Amino acid sequence: MGIRVGIVGGTGYTGVELLRLLARHPEVELAAITSRGDAGRPVSDMFPSLRGHVDLAFSDPAQAGLERCDAVFFATPNGIAMQQVPALLDAGVKVIDLAADFRLKDEASWEKWYGMPHACPEVLKGAVYGLPEVNREQVRSAQLVANPGCYPTAVQLGFIPLIEAGVVDRASLIADAKSGVSGAGRKAEVHTLFAEAGDNFKAYGVPGHRHLPEIRQGLAAVAGEEVGLTFVPHLTPLIRGIHATLYARLTKDCDLQALFENRYRGERFVDVLPAGSHPETRSVRASNNCRIAVHRPQGGDTVVVLSVIDNLVKGAAGQAVQNMNLMFGFAESCGLELVPVLP
Amino acid sequence: MGIRVGIVGGTGYTGVELLRLLARHPEVELAAITSRGDAGRPVSDMFPSLRGHVDLAFSDPAQAGLERCDAVFFATPNGIAMQQVPALLDAGVKVIDLAADFRLKDEASWEKWYGMPHACPEVLKGAVYGLPEVNREQVRSAQLVANPGCYPTAVQLGFIPLIEAGVVDRASLIADAKSGVSGAGRKAEVHTLFAEAGDNFKAYGVPGHRHLPEIRQGLAAVAGEEVGLTFVPHLTPLIRGIHATLYARLTKDCDLQALFENRYRGERFVDVLPAGSHPETRSVRASNNCRIAVHRPQGGDTVVVLSVIDNLVKGAAGQAVQNMNLMFGFAESCGLELVPVLP
Amino acid sequence: MGIRVGIVGGTGYTGVELLRLLARHPEVELAAITSRGDAGRPVSDMFPSLRGHVDLAFSDPAQAGLERCDAVFFATPNGIAMQQVPALLDAGVKVIDLAADFRLKDEASWEKWYGMPHACPEVLKGAVYGLPEVNREQVRSAQLVANPGCYPTAVQLGFIPLIEAGVVDRASLIADAKSGVSGAGRKAEVHTLFAEAGDNFKAYGVPGHRHLPEIRQGLAAVAGEEVGLTFVPHLTPLIRGIHATLYARLTKDCDLQALFENRYRGERFVDVLPAGSHPETRSVRASNNCRIAVHRPQGGDTVVVLSVIDNLVKGAAGQAVQNMNLMFGFAESCGLELVPVLP
Amino acid sequence: MGIRVGIVGGTGYTGVELLRLLARHPEVELAAITSRGDAGRPVSDMFPSLRGHVDLAFSDPAQAGLERCDAVFFATPNGIAMQQVPALLDAGVKVIDLAADFRLKDEASWEKWYGMPHACPEVLKGAVYGLPEVNREQVRSAQLVANPGCYPTAVQLGFIPLIEAGVVDRASLIADAKSGVSGAGRKAEVHTLFAEAGDNFKAYGVPGHRHLPEIRQGLAAVAGEEVGLTFVPHLTPLIRGIHATLYARLTKDCDLQALFENRYRGERFVDVLPAGSHPETRSVRASNNCRIAVHRPQGGDTVVVLSVIDNLVKGAAGQAVQNMNLMFGFAESCGLELVPVLP
Repeated sequence: MGIRVGIVGGTGYTGVELLRLLARHPEVELAAITSRGDAGRPVSDMFPSLRGHVDLAFSDPAQAGLERCDAVFFATPNGIAMQQVPALLDAGVKVIDLAADFRLKDEASWEKWYGMPHACPEVLKGAVYGLPEVNREQVRSAQLVANPGCYPTAVQLGFIPLIEAGVVDRASLIADAKSGVSGAGRKAEVHTLFAEAGDNFKAYGVPGHRHLPEIRQGLAAVAGEEVGLTFVPHLTPLIRGIHATLYARLTKDCDLQALFENRYRGERFVDVLPAGSHPETRSVRASNNCRIAVHRPQGGDTVVVLSVIDNLVKGAAGQAVQNMNLMFGFAESCGLELVPVLP
Repeated sequence: MGIRVGIVGGTGYTGVELLRLLARHPEVELAAITSRGDAGRPVSDMFPSLRGHVDLAFSDPAQAGLERCDAVFFATPNGIAMQQVPALLDAGVKVIDLAADFRLKDEASWEKWYGMPHACPEVLKGAVYGLPEVNREQVRSAQLVANPGCYPTAVQLGFIPLIEAGVVDRASLIADAKSGVSGAGRKAEVHTLFAEAGDNFKAYGVPGHRHLPEIRQGLAAVAGEEVGLTFVPHLTPLIRGIHATLYARLTKDCDLQALFENRYRGERFVDVLPAGSHPETRSVRASNNCRIAVHRPQGGDTVVVLSVIDNLVKGAAGQAVQNMNLMFGFAESCGLELVPVLP
Repeated sequence: MGIRVGIVGGTGYTGVELLRLLARHPEVELAAITSRGDAGRPVSDMFPSLRGHVDLAFSDPAQAGLERCDAVFFATPNGIAMQQVPALLDAGVKVIDLAADFRLKDEASWEKWYGMPHACPEVLKGAVYGLPEVNREQVRSAQLVANPGCYPTAVQLGFIPLIEAGVVDRASLIADAKSGVSGAGRKAEVHTLFAEAGDNFKAYGVPGHRHLPEIRQGLAAVAGEEVGLTFVPHLTPLIRGIHATLYARLTKDCDLQALFENRYRGERFVDVLPAGSHPETRSVRASNNCRIAVHRPQGGDTVVVLSVIDNLVKGAAGQAVQNMNLMFGFAESCGLELVPVLP
Repeated sequence: MGIRVGIVGGTGYTGVELLRLLARHPEVELAAITSRGDAGRPVSDMFPSLRGHVDLAFSDPAQAGLERCDAVFFATPNGIAMQQVPALLDAGVKVIDLAADFRLKDEASWEKWYGMPHACPEVLKGAVYGLPEVNREQVRSAQLVANPGCYPTAVQLGFIPLIEAGVVDRASLIADAKSGVSGAGRKAEVHTLFAEAGDNFKAYGVPGHRHLPEIRQGLAAVAGEEVGLTFVPHLTPLIRGIHATLYARLTKDCDLQALFENRYRGERFVDVLPAGSHPETRSVRASNNCRIAVHRPQGGDTVVVLSVIDNLVKGAAGQAVQNMNLMFGFAESCGLELVPVLP
């Protein structure tokens, strides 16, 4: 019947997306989905899209028997997982946290950006940052995976070939990123109402966004030294999708197209488009793909990388399932052979 | 390797949706996709969403070898299939036409509504109208299936239980239907531009729409007599989705909820929601489901039925695959176990 | 300097729309805008669109000096105005309530539909229902105007010519209405989030919506007897706009086009389109117009009326200003000569 | 009765927006609107939003009597105005071209980027580039104004204070710009269909966009030397609006907020927001404003400027009217006192 899987916090967008993917995963048995506020309510009552696919009701976290699961996903707000993960690890459960609790290695930095003390800093070190295209082997043997943020996934996948090859100035990277509104979650807030976010475009968090230290940490790990990054996120009237437009100053001539193609050859979920392409967010909608194009406008010394993902799939639930597949020795693409939905 | 399948006219929305579904269908080998204008161009070049899933190039219709296919889908504008179908039928190919060429049984009516002479009126009689929830057995043995229109699917599935049970006035039915913009196809036209159809809502075709005679014919077949129907279609700023709001005058008291649940018990793709529900189009997005709710406001004598489908799936490509499954003896839901994409 | 005007509850969509209109109204001096939660905050800080046009800060209701205004608009949730209006009336202030507190004449009906006791039922009788195309003379001399709801405005303007002329069956009217999401207000709620209401379409309130008794009351007043109405509202992914599709059974032959043109001849804000037209919501976007077309499909006995308004203008703030103009003897279109914004 | 104004090419979005603005302009009499394909058709038949505001019919260009107008706007595709402008100039008419025919001073550059020979290169030199915040005095006395492109307006207004003050590296400017779909015009094309551009985000023209030389020319004029610019435009699912996110490397410390406020003090249509702000496109919707914020993230040496306009107003028709006002000695904001439409 497959491994027993639990989901903590099943009422947000990453939760319902996990359900969409796991409901059809051949190696998974959905054992529990928790929601403090909606315990007892059938999942398909809140999400009629799941009628006929998910028969569970939300259960109270305390009675969900998560410690008897093989794997538990946390699709909770930041600060929840770190309260519960140590006990699950002790019980031998493998854990994938889709929130930010274990993404930053540096406790002080985490506490600064997330505005609270960390509940289990001793666990931070052992957590593996779950970007399989970088850390595949560590993920395979991890007991706790910190699933990357949506922006960090799109931005890192776009910069990594350049950083690894040492062909750009690492001190002056720029990431201009645009996200669909589902990235803000399913919380009732004024600024993400249809009549606020629709037919509207804006930047936010320019002075500093929580994904900045995460991206810097990831790129520094690849570079072997600190990197300088300006990161500007924007809200765009899409439901799903992230488009990262990345700028770097070329310091060494090279065949950029070949560099990217070689770096991602064999990667099932990273697709380097032909030279001259402009990836669209909808070309990955509802799928676990990242599509990337690299440009050098007018042959100058600025490299422009365009990187798109679906923030709820490769940017959240899909990458989490990809990590689960690795952790349990399933085929990496198991349950993720999703053809993007277009139009 | 499965049956060999060809698609005529693969560059529109019903074509690319067929590709999305057939690319993952375990019993199908995609043999040919034709496009007069784009012959030789890789399909995934036009639709990057299909990179990694479809390796074919568009082929010229004359050289596609369609007569060697087991099944051929026509995803062409009205008036094309009728030119080519007779030869394919003679060659023993099973054909599913997603356009309107074989939907109306009456030649004169077809010519009136479609404004051209019919190229093979003798074939009309043998074509089976492919609404499996009504004509399942005939579809199983059909060689030519006329795949229903998108509005007609949503409207008929909503009215059928009432008509069959004889509990409403058949002379005064009203169907107020709203469609997403993909229903207008992938033609370059001003009125479906983003800046025209976006943030805008309008009715169209009130004096008469081509789906009116199709719905009337279908309901009359069920009723055993002519029906009176007012049909008002609207364009709404969705990409995918049809919402039909149906009104009928109750002539006999009955348990409407039970009536609907009984009628569709066992139907894999028609889901009767609990009493009091309001189905959303997104609850079926990218899936082959129709979800229906029935209301009797304030206990009066007006029945209100709410019926939603994805116009490109149950309203086109998905229903076509459902018909193919029946024609070839596959499980009816083979390749159609799609979890709706929400949000 | 014009009349002194106060707005109670300036932080919602009807409030900010009143500000947009009144900021350019030549006969108005904006004296106060209240908000309990945002007192002291500059209005243009919350709504940067008003920078350079509105210099006021929100003031605390208790200190706003509303009783010294010539006119006060209530742009508050239901149940607020009725607490404060009697005192203002006593002070000689003219009041326009954009909420529902004074719309229903029958206290019991009001309490049933709004779920609370009415705070000043004695005032109900004197309130004038502010649909100028019906009650223009009463509005001129009113001290308290109940500004109609958005749906009721679109629906009544569409039905009135038919009802007045007595050419349709008054017992079986159907109003299928579609609203943009701004109609739900600027409250933080999940179901109106961009990622919920975007790319989605649904009916709601089919068992009974608060605008039903309001429409019935208005049509009954015109008819001189009760009317039977089925009213189904829908949420459509527009920001602004209502499209009402109305159905009635014709009981007497007549020239429908002439009927409508004659009824609204001379009305500045009701535009009867040429025969065969389909009004779009965007054709009235950001303006105080209602545009109407009347159809009789296939010459049958069903009349179809299409009626569009901008729910925030003719459906709320614009109609309120129109009423104010009448109450103070200004030109009825003063400050309302708005050219719709298209695209 | 005001000056007599003609519009050549009134069927596109810049044309209909000119009509919206000029219909209410107190100093203007609309004399003629031409359209080769729609001559004789009432303007309000094509654009029902203008019913009651514009009574003209489209006229044939040859019979429109444009040479008897005081001012003529060209709202035509590139390459049309240059055919007709010399004769109008000879007749003493003042001309404002909203297309690109007179924007580039260098004939060779124009021919390279626009792919055709220029019909009247001798006129190029005398044309004034109509960005009033830079060239106000020249515009006042111009007979021919080249109205700036939409991207160039947003980008230049954001960079100009930095360039003029000499505080950034002029060799490595980056402009990441996002445009609503109306910027692509009202042509029937597949890529701007609702079902293509909706719920989708993409970059385009990264190898080179026609607005690149225009921006470079404008900034070079301000800088007194060539500038290095990387320009990446994106298509975002808005109807109206441009958001430019600009990056520059700071070479000299300075008070950026004061720099911007001082530069634009007294400018009616450029609004520098308080420090820390993030302008939204909707805050300028349907108005002639540009709103700008300047940031220096984490106190580093990268300056980030956020600049928003409505591409059809300050980016096209509004700026054209602003130029007309200057050319005829009207108040610069005459007819442009538009309160942005929000939501």
